[in-house]
Amino acid sequence: MGQRIFTSARCEFMSAQKAALVAPGPVPLPEAVRLAMAGQLIHHRTPAFEAIMREVGQGLGWLYQTQQDVLVLTGSGSTGMEAALVNFARSDAPVVCVGGGKFALRWAEVARAYGVEVVLLEVPWGQAASPEALGELLEAHPNTAAVTITANETSTGVHHPIEALCAVVRERSEALLLVDGITAVGVQDLGMDALGIDALVTGSQKVYAVPPGLAFVGVSERAWSRLGDLPRYGLDLARERARQCDGQTAFSPAISLIFGLQAALRLLREEGLEALWGRHARCAQATRAGVAALGLELFSAAPCNAVTAVRVPDGLDGVALATRCLELGAVIAGGQSHLKGKILRIGHLGSHRRADVIHALSTLELALESMGHPVAFGKGVGAALARFSAS
Amino acid sequence: MGQRIFTSARCEFMSAQKAALVAPGPVPLPEAVRLAMAGQLIHHRTPAFEAIMREVGQGLGWLYQTQQDVLVLTGSGSTGMEAALVNFARSDAPVVCVGGGKFALRWAEVARAYGVEVVLLEVPWGQAASPEALGELLEAHPNTAAVTITANETSTGVHHPIEALCAVVRERSEALLLVDGITAVGVQDLGMDALGIDALVTGSQKVYAVPPGLAFVGVSERAWSRLGDLPRYGLDLARERARQCDGQTAFSPAISLIFGLQAALRLLREEGLEALWGRHARCAQATRAGVAALGLELFSAAPCNAVTAVRVPDGLDGVALATRCLELGAVIAGGQSHLKGKILRIGHLGSHRRADVIHALSTLELALESMGHPVAFGKGVGAALARFSAS
Repeated sequence: MGQRIFTSARCEFMSAQKAALVAPGPVPLPEAVRLAMAGQLIHHRTPAFEAIMREVGQGLGWLYQTQQDVLVLTGSGSTGMEAALVNFARSDAPVVCVGGGKFALRWAEVARAYGVEVVLLEVPWGQAASPEALGELLEAHPNTAAVTITANETSTGVHHPIEALCAVVRERSEALLLVDGITAVGVQDLGMDALGIDALVTGSQKVYAVPPGLAFVGVSERAWSRLGDLPRYGLDLARERARQCDGQTAFSPAISLIFGLQAALRLLREEGLEALWGRHARCAQATRAGVAALGLELFSAAPCNAVTAVRVPDGLDGVALATRCLELGAVIAGGQSHLKGKILRIGHLGSHRRADVIHALSTLELALESMGHPVAFGKGVGAALARFSAS
Repeated sequence: MGQRIFTSARCEFMSAQKAALVAPGPVPLPEAVRLAMAGQLIHHRTPAFEAIMREVGQGLGWLYQTQQDVLVLTGSGSTGMEAALVNFARSDAPVVCVGGGKFALRWAEVARAYGVEVVLLEVPWGQAASPEALGELLEAHPNTAAVTITANETSTGVHHPIEALCAVVRERSEALLLVDGITAVGVQDLGMDALGIDALVTGSQKVYAVPPGLAFVGVSERAWSRLGDLPRYGLDLARERARQCDGQTAFSPAISLIFGLQAALRLLREEGLEALWGRHARCAQATRAGVAALGLELFSAAPCNAVTAVRVPDGLDGVALATRCLELGAVIAGGQSHLKGKILRIGHLGSHRRADVIHALSTLELALESMGHPVAFGKGVGAALARFSAS
């Protein structure tokens, strides 16, 4: 019977529409963003483009809660991380990287690619990092040039205690503080200036609900005064800053994506920071309630509000389960690295709303049942609705 | 009287439409590209996206006239140049850079940023590079790891003798041959395999008529076997190749721009290579005829078909003239570096057709006259039309 449902649902989906994006980015584009991107180009070396860049810069500063520069780069979120690293780490001093997931370890990969010594704070995947352990490591390495932290770990769904981690860096080290806020800024209250962050990185395909292709790096005055000695050309942030102060970019920018970003930031500002954080929290809480009602377990011991990582039930193939969800019309992400096939990841970023949570959970119910896992249809969805109703 | 025309035309433009792009990129987007970019996202880790990447890869191979891999990167054309350099140059051997313009010298800037020794073949701006001089330089530096050449120099409008330059590198050196084809591939017959090019770079905002934000790098088997030792992470082409063989990318790609690229490559293939080259030649020839009829001089002694660089008449301020053109509804580029204010640059790339040439010339006629330069209205346009009519 499960197979029958699956087949007919697949046919309906394949012929009628694209699968809905309920993974932790990229996320569905709002209509205003799509229409903005369809606009005819303007030349970037014009006052009209400079006006857009200035508006975008103000919007980014608002979202970052900062008075510092937030630079726009063309590239993925990882481009932003690499930019922070190659400008603010050094060849003659270690970086301390807080581990715990694929994206946390990416900082270490970047550093090693540039020959920088990495001191890794080992964190079990699925667990939150310990501020105390970080403090001890920093005292053992007083010449640390930079500390890297991933605020919410997208590969595991973990919310690290970012306030406490930042505080311990500030209190017990002179190192620059580089933070991957790719699935944290806009999801929760994460003020760059309040936390004393020196370089805060985000990417366009998460909270902004813009396609991938833009990275944003907020940089503190302290960081500007301590530019490092690693080689860089396209990611030279000092050159970018000199141009972006004038509403320009050092190289041809992804103009259409910046049109989309302008539209997206207007939508976010209309909603407001607290409403934005609240929406992410409600979607995540409802998803967790639905998952629990289906008898499934969370992977993360400290779940964040950006992505819910769910353990695949014993006996099921997680890769096949994600594929089944895709065929049924929902892109739910699988696990990465050694978690491949072991977890599913449902996102709650940017444009996601109640309907996306319900679509993800109802698709998951159908997919589980079609693969022989017992499901009381509506139980997960019902628990999520109850949570929405109460919030 | 000039001022009156200018003012009324400006008002009409400001209230009615965007200025037409007749600079050497970015160029106007075809409707199919704009609509493709407005499409809802699909997730990049899906078979649907892999199918698009495979189609795009085939289209790029067709345009490059190559059987080798052509990789897609997120970034500007300069990102593609940097990728070629950091993968195929070496820390322990010089690169020979053929100079002659802002973009030719960019190769040298990138190399120096990574600590690579640069041997520069000095070429006066506006002149074509000498294959003989390049051959002599290569014999004087037998340990050269790579030679960089910019096929058409966008800053000066020069067409370098790319076939002869490539041949001399092949004959007199074992160095890898890195070519900036950003305003040459698709403009003229430039076959990567036929010329023995090891890394051929282009960018989305030129011939493709896609917004800026994608760079393309074709890589030869020879180059893959000689990966260098410079530090790289996001621009690690070996990692990209491993993923792009499977229709994937190493990092989140600019999905919407790739939608646009897919549409653009379909348009280009429909037109055909020879028709494409012919269209660029006709637009460039007509522009040169129009410029001559207006009594203006070309800057380049060897003009290319991608961009026509025109000397600003004595006594006129070139920056003000470009601004006047913008106000009159045409984005014509000014000069760069020491040519700022000295030249104007009219582009003929990708989506440009007869109407764009006529718009550029007629706007230039109005702008010149409004700034007090004597113009017989219609003379430039007429000469261009005559040239189109004859071709």
